[in-house]
Amino acid sequence: MSARREPIEYADASPEVRAVYDDIMATRGTDWVNNFWKVLAHDPPTLRRIWANIKEVMGPGALDPLTKELLYVAVSASNGCQYCIASHGAAARKKGMSEAQYSELLAIVGLANETNRLVTALDVSIDPAFR
Amino acid sequence: MSARREPIEYADASPEVRAVYDDIMATRGTDWVNNFWKVLAHDPPTLRRIWANIKEVMGPGALDPLTKELLYVAVSASNGCQYCIASHGAAARKKGMSEAQYSELLAIVGLANETNRLVTALDVSIDPAFR
Amino acid sequence: MSARREPIEYADASPEVRAVYDDIMATRGTDWVNNFWKVLAHDPPTLRRIWANIKEVMGPGALDPLTKELLYVAVSASNGCQYCIASHGAAARKKGMSEAQYSELLAIVGLANETNRLVTALDVSIDPAFR
Amino acid sequence: MSARREPIEYADASPEVRAVYDDIMATRGTDWVNNFWKVLAHDPPTLRRIWANIKEVMGPGALDPLTKELLYVAVSASNGCQYCIASHGAAARKKGMSEAQYSELLAIVGLANETNRLVTALDVSIDPAFR
Amino acid sequence: MSARREPIEYADASPEVRAVYDDIMATRGTDWVNNFWKVLAHDPPTLRRIWANIKEVMGPGALDPLTKELLYVAVSASNGCQYCIASHGAAARKKGMSEAQYSELLAIVGLANETNRLVTALDVSIDPAFR
Amino acid sequence: MSARREPIEYADASPEVRAVYDDIMATRGTDWVNNFWKVLAHDPPTLRRIWANIKEVMGPGALDPLTKELLYVAVSASNGCQYCIASHGAAARKKGMSEAQYSELLAIVGLANETNRLVTALDVSIDPAFR
Repeated sequence: MSARREPIEYADASPEVRAVYDDIMATRGTDWVNNFWKVLAHDPPTLRRIWANIKEVMGPGALDPLTKELLYVAVSASNGCQYCIASHGAAARKKGMSEAQYSELLAIVGLANETNRLVTALDVSIDPAFR
Repeated sequence: MSARREPIEYADASPEVRAVYDDIMATRGTDWVNNFWKVLAHDPPTLRRIWANIKEVMGPGALDPLTKELLYVAVSASNGCQYCIASHGAAARKKGMSEAQYSELLAIVGLANETNRLVTALDVSIDPAFR
Repeated sequence: MSARREPIEYADASPEVRAVYDDIMATRGTDWVNNFWKVLAHDPPTLRRIWANIKEVMGPGALDPLTKELLYVAVSASNGCQYCIASHGAAARKKGMSEAQYSELLAIVGLANETNRLVTALDVSIDPAFR
Repeated sequence: MSARREPIEYADASPEVRAVYDDIMATRGTDWVNNFWKVLAHDPPTLRRIWANIKEVMGPGALDPLTKELLYVAVSASNGCQYCIASHGAAARKKGMSEAQYSELLAIVGLANETNRLVTALDVSIDPAFR
Repeated sequence: MSARREPIEYADASPEVRAVYDDIMATRGTDWVNNFWKVLAHDPPTLRRIWANIKEVMGPGALDPLTKELLYVAVSASNGCQYCIASHGAAARKKGMSEAQYSELLAIVGLANETNRLVTALDVSIDPAFR
Repeated sequence: MSARREPIEYADASPEVRAVYDDIMATRGTDWVNNFWKVLAHDPPTLRRIWANIKEVMGPGALDPLTKELLYVAVSASNGCQYCIASHGAAARKKGMSEAQYSELLAIVGLANETNRLVTALDVSIDPAFR
C-alpha cells in the first residue's frame, strides 16, 4: 500500500529479471546492480524497455561517453533528481569527470535556468541568424 | 503596457549599454549582438550582470567550450526554451557540434526526463556505493 | 520559524476547522483526516477553499472516480510530489487500481515526459488534422 | 542552422524511415503520419526507438486504451506541450473522450498542480496509513 | 477537434456564464472580460470555481493588492506562462508597478531559479536556525 | 564520490572563501553563514559570483526588501526548493512577514500554478488590451 517499491535482489528475482540484471552487469563490467533497476524490476516489461533505451542512447555514438554522462547529470540536476545526480555523477566520475568539471557543470545548469526564465518571460524573438 | 520588450539597437543604446554590446562582440569576435541582450538592455544593471555571469561561466575552464555549450543546450531543451536552444545551438554548431551529436544530445535530454520522473515517483533510495 | 507547519489534530482544532474535517470524513466515509488537511488548517480559509475545490473536481462527473484518481496520481508523479503520489495512490487503490495498472501509469508518465521534451525542443508544428 | 527540423515526407524518406512510417500507419489504421514522427525521422535510430516505446507503452495492457490516452494528455497539459495535447487529445477523442471529460481532465490537471505545490512547499509528512 | 477553445463572447454566453462575466466586471470596475475567462466559459462549473478562487485569493487580505499581483507575475514568469505574465502584469501596472520594479522582479525570478537548482542539486541541509 | 558536498566551516576555509563569508556576515549584520554558502565554497569562483549576484539583486532598489524576499520565497515554493523556502522564509520573517502573509503567499503560488496550466493547455490568446 506504499508509493515506494522495495528493491528486488538478484536472489529473489525471476529469470526474466535476472536476464536484465546480467546484461546490465556485463555491459558495465560490474558485479552489482543499482537500486533504480531493482525497483523497476516490479514491472519487468518496463525494466527491460528502459534498460534497452539506456543501453542504446548511452552507448557508443557521435558524442563520447563522458560527454553523454555529463549531459545526463546536467538534465538531472536541472530537474532536481538527486538519485539521478548521484548515479550518473558516479558514472561520470568513473569516466573521468573531475570535481572542477562537476562544479562548472553545476554553474552552467544554474545559469541556464536563470537565463531560460528571463528569455521566456521576456518572449525574446529568435534572431534571423539563428533560424 | 506589454509583456514583451522590444530590442534596443546599438544606434539607440546608451553609452552604458553600448559598452556591454561592445564587450559581447569583442569576446565573441562578431559584429552583431543577439536579441536576448538587446531586450535585457531595458534594464542596464541586469544586462551587465547577466553578461558578466555568462562570460565567466562559459569562459575557459575545466570543461572545453563545446562541452559547455552542449550542456547549455541540453538544459535549455529540457526546460523548453526555444530561443535558448536556437542561440546556444548556433554557438555549439560554431564550436563543432554535428547534427548527429545534436540528435544524441536530444535523445539524452528526453531519456533523462523519463528516468528522472520514474526515479522520483518511485522514491528510489541512493545506493551506498553512490554516497 | 520553520517552513514546515505541524499538523493540527481534531482535538486541537477550532470549530471552523473541525467543520471541514467533519465534511472530509463524511464525504470519504473515513474516521480520520490525512496530514495535508491538518497542515492547511493553519490557514482556515485556504483549508476550506481547497477542500471545496477537491470535493467539486473529484466528485461525480463525466469521468469515473478511478480515472479521476489515476489522472491525479499521474500529474503528481510527473511533478515529483511524493506525498501526493502516496495519498492519491492510496485513494486510487481503494477505488480499484491494481499494481499492474499503476506500473502502466508510471510508464506513461515517464514516456510522456520524454516525448514532451522532444516535441518542444524540436518545435514540431501542429498537423492541420489536429486543429 | 535552425533549432527546428522540417518534417520528412514519406516520398522523401529512406527505406529505414518508411518502414517505421508503415508500421505507425498499420498499427493505427490510418493513411498518414503526424509531424512528430516526420521530424524525428532526421534521426532514424531515435525514430525507431521512440516509436517502439510508444507502441509498447500505449498498446493493450491493464489500463484500457482511452484511459492511457487521458493520462498522456494530462501529463502533456501539465507540462504545457501544446503539440502533445493536440495529438494525444485527438487520439483520446477518437477513442471516445467527450468534451465534458476533457474539461474535467483539465480541471484535475490544474488542481493537482495547485495542491502539489502546497504539499511540497509545506513539506507535509506522509501519513503512516499511506506507507 | 482542436486543443484550442475559442473565446465565448458575452452576446453568445448562457445566463450562467454571463453572471460570472458580470461579477468579474463589477469586481474589477471594467467593461470587458479577458480571454482566459471567455475560454474557460466552455466549462461553466470550472469558470465559476476558478473565478471564485481568484476573487478570494486575490481579494483584500494581509498582503496589499500590488504585492499579490507581483507574486502572481513572478510565479507565472518562473513557469513561462506568457499570457499570465501579460494579464497579471497589466493588473500589476494598473496597481502601480513601475518598469523598474518589473525589471527587479524578473531579476529575482531568474536568480531564484538559478539558486533553487544549485541548492537542490547540492542537496544542502537546512540550517538548525531555519527550522 | 557523493552528490552532496559537506559545508566548509570558517575555520577550515581558504582566505578567498573567508573573504566572501566576511562580506555575507557584514552585509547581513549576522555572525554566521548559512549552509548554502558553505557548500558553494567547494567552488570559490561560484561562491563569489553567486554572492555578488544575490547582493546586487536583493540589495536596495525599486522594490522594498520585504517584497523582494516574498518574491524569492514564492518562486522557491513554486519550484519546490525546501531549503530555499526555509532560508528566504526566515529572511522574510526577519523583515516583517507575518504568518498570515505567508499563508496568502502560498495560496497565490498554488493558484497561479493552477491557472498557469489551464492557460497554457488551452492556449489562450493574449487580449489586445494586454499587448
